[in-house]
Amino acid sequence: MDVDKKDSIASDSSEQVVNPWEVAAKDGGKIDYDKLIDQFGCQRLDDSLIDRVQRLTSRQPHVFLRRGVFFAHRDFNEVLDAYERGDKFYLYTGRGPSSEALHLGHLIPFMFTKYLQEAFKVPLVIQLTDDEKCMWKNLSVEESQRLARENAKDIIACGFDVTKTFIFSDFDYVGGAFYKNMVKVAKCVTLNKAMGIFGFSGEDHIGKLSFPPVQACLSVPAVPSFPSSFPHLFPGKDKLRCLIPCAIDQDPYFRMTRDVAPRLGYSKPALIESSFFPALQASLHAFKLLSILFILFSQGENGKMSASDPNSAIYVTDTAKEIKNKINRYAFSGGQDSIEKHREIGANLEVDIPVKYLSFFLDDDTELEHIKKEYGEGRMLTGEVKKRLTEVLTEMVERHRMARAAVTDEMVDAFMAVRPLPSMFE
Amino acid sequence: MDVDKKDSIASDSSEQVVNPWEVAAKDGGKIDYDKLIDQFGCQRLDDSLIDRVQRLTSRQPHVFLRRGVFFAHRDFNEVLDAYERGDKFYLYTGRGPSSEALHLGHLIPFMFTKYLQEAFKVPLVIQLTDDEKCMWKNLSVEESQRLARENAKDIIACGFDVTKTFIFSDFDYVGGAFYKNMVKVAKCVTLNKAMGIFGFSGEDHIGKLSFPPVQACLSVPAVPSFPSSFPHLFPGKDKLRCLIPCAIDQDPYFRMTRDVAPRLGYSKPALIESSFFPALQASLHAFKLLSILFILFSQGENGKMSASDPNSAIYVTDTAKEIKNKINRYAFSGGQDSIEKHREIGANLEVDIPVKYLSFFLDDDTELEHIKKEYGEGRMLTGEVKKRLTEVLTEMVERHRMARAAVTDEMVDAFMAVRPLPSMFE
Repeated sequence: MDVDKKDSIASDSSEQVVNPWEVAAKDGGKIDYDKLIDQFGCQRLDDSLIDRVQRLTSRQPHVFLRRGVFFAHRDFNEVLDAYERGDKFYLYTGRGPSSEALHLGHLIPFMFTKYLQEAFKVPLVIQLTDDEKCMWKNLSVEESQRLARENAKDIIACGFDVTKTFIFSDFDYVGGAFYKNMVKVAKCVTLNKAMGIFGFSGEDHIGKLSFPPVQACLSVPAVPSFPSSFPHLFPGKDKLRCLIPCAIDQDPYFRMTRDVAPRLGYSKPALIESSFFPALQASLHAFKLLSILFILFSQGENGKMSASDPNSAIYVTDTAKEIKNKINRYAFSGGQDSIEKHREIGANLEVDIPVKYLSFFLDDDTELEHIKKEYGEGRMLTGEVKKRLTEVLTEMVERHRMARAAVTDEMVDAFMAVRPLPSMFE
Repeated sequence: MDVDKKDSIASDSSEQVVNPWEVAAKDGGKIDYDKLIDQFGCQRLDDSLIDRVQRLTSRQPHVFLRRGVFFAHRDFNEVLDAYERGDKFYLYTGRGPSSEALHLGHLIPFMFTKYLQEAFKVPLVIQLTDDEKCMWKNLSVEESQRLARENAKDIIACGFDVTKTFIFSDFDYVGGAFYKNMVKVAKCVTLNKAMGIFGFSGEDHIGKLSFPPVQACLSVPAVPSFPSSFPHLFPGKDKLRCLIPCAIDQDPYFRMTRDVAPRLGYSKPALIESSFFPALQASLHAFKLLSILFILFSQGENGKMSASDPNSAIYVTDTAKEIKNKINRYAFSGGQDSIEKHREIGANLEVDIPVKYLSFFLDDDTELEHIKKEYGEGRMLTGEVKKRLTEVLTEMVERHRMARAAVTDEMVDAFMAVRPLPSMFE
């Protein structure tokens, strides 16, 4: 139960900054994920681990595993060891409901979590941090709660099993056992610890630590990692392990949580961490806008997709026409400037956004490999790849829209009811 | 609904320091309460206001009013204006349950609040900040909750009316409407504001602001001042005024609360504030121990009575023998060194603790005046006054002990049940 050696090492590289508030690559270039694994002290999710998932779940691993979208972890192997011995775990993921419409990047953790829930047949808690968004953003309590419920509909539309899933909003659920764990966690977090973990320095403006939000941000996301926060779900199972699928920028939060866990007598939560989903214009930004402003407010593959520029992302509310238009106009292409040149040297797949998006959302491995080969060798043109991507995303968004339309208020109430989960450990 | 001009002025005098964490008089002398009223910007509770209380309640004002124990207020006159027009208010007081046994000083706000509840026939909420004590003191969640329940028994023993009183512990009750108000308050409190109100300076060690406790301390005591925090008690009565009886060292908390209230659409809570109850050795300290240590860890009349030195206070758990012994051995006397001198010049009532204690707890005005005259003019000796005080306190403590012994767990449950109060606005 010792604290991981690397758990308390912050990303203090002067070259790239990744934490829950800031993602900035060196000189506006790409995030170096290998380096990030070293900086953070987490582990690479290698092929042997993916093979093991396949063996244990008797199904093909999710595209996001096969293609390295989820590429890093902490103690995932231990969770699998326990699972192999017959011990279940539970999943925890969440969302800060700051906007009405989700974009495709927002869906990624939920799509992956749904797969994990199905494959491992384990319970899942989903936290909507409406309290945090109310504090940080200029949102009223009521508006934050409304957004939480709207976001819950999008989450439910991803296909979660209501008999294994508890969705809660902090404003609804904080109290009782959960509040007690909040106080316990807060007691363990000193200012110095927080500064170390989040990479703040003594030079930082004290406003960064402006205390009420920081405290909430620190303890609130930690608490669902501990099964005793859910006495209606996990009575007497205080040692149950928790697995958290998240983007790697959330790692600092959970390093703090993992540090605190043994001091409170809980198991450290395990993590399975994804890279960032690139913005449509990603490579455009990465190559052309090397300004300081860009580094500060970075988005794209050098950073996270931003919800603030509607043309940087495909939203689950976009129409087929909007999707087509965005892909054709904004998706950065790795194709060559002229057809002749393209036929000759082929597309640069490293920077091509349509291919990247297809590698997230095109299920068929064979077709993806075919496209990459043909496009990379110049036989396929950007327009053709964009057309295929438009089909894939239109179909996906349309499917999501129909699923979401079928989500009733009663279903939201059912997912959010504080209740035991009948088939929790089937 | 403007913010009081003086609301944001902290006690920044270099001469005396009074805030919830520190009470230190100038050079170990007495607290200058007149000066404190000026420093804090509150109002003196004058005779005309006390007469008005008598008229409105048709009963003699409480000893603590008649004798100036509660000596300052904020907007108490407005609460009385409203009451005269037929508008009720509610009372809010509380306790941080950090120790098992209460001393007499702890009982003062509860004795006074019971009088206010009876006299004005108004509902009352009593907060037990077990969360705050868990954070600040080295107490587990479970121990803090146990102490909260033990303290609730002492509070109930003061004679509160269960049909008008809701006692709650933060660990039990935080959540829902209460948690929403916590977040709303926290959003309004900037670091600078907190520093100004509590008299911190940029030079203070950052540990003073060590963020989780500060945030809890700031927002948790504020929240019960707003009726919407109790939807089961005050549904649809968001403008109901709140009156808070407290010791004047709590004023900075509620200055912050009063500052925030109008921004959240609530009425400012009114305050009625007491001086400190002196320690037995009060004047001994004040005159003989002028060390820096004394100023830092002050107790006695120059400060608050301390719970850490068992001989500085009479506890509600003390036996008759212990009470007699403490009074005889430790209660600082204003009598003269020799009987001859005493007969000649009389006792110094200004520093005499037995007389001070009698002025808190001896109901009979005539007898008190008689004692002060006889003792002050040397006809009565210290031993006689101490004997009378011993009788008064022994009887009072015995009465409390019997009342407390009659408090069952079922009664605690009844007071702490989240329920409407039937006779709330009779």
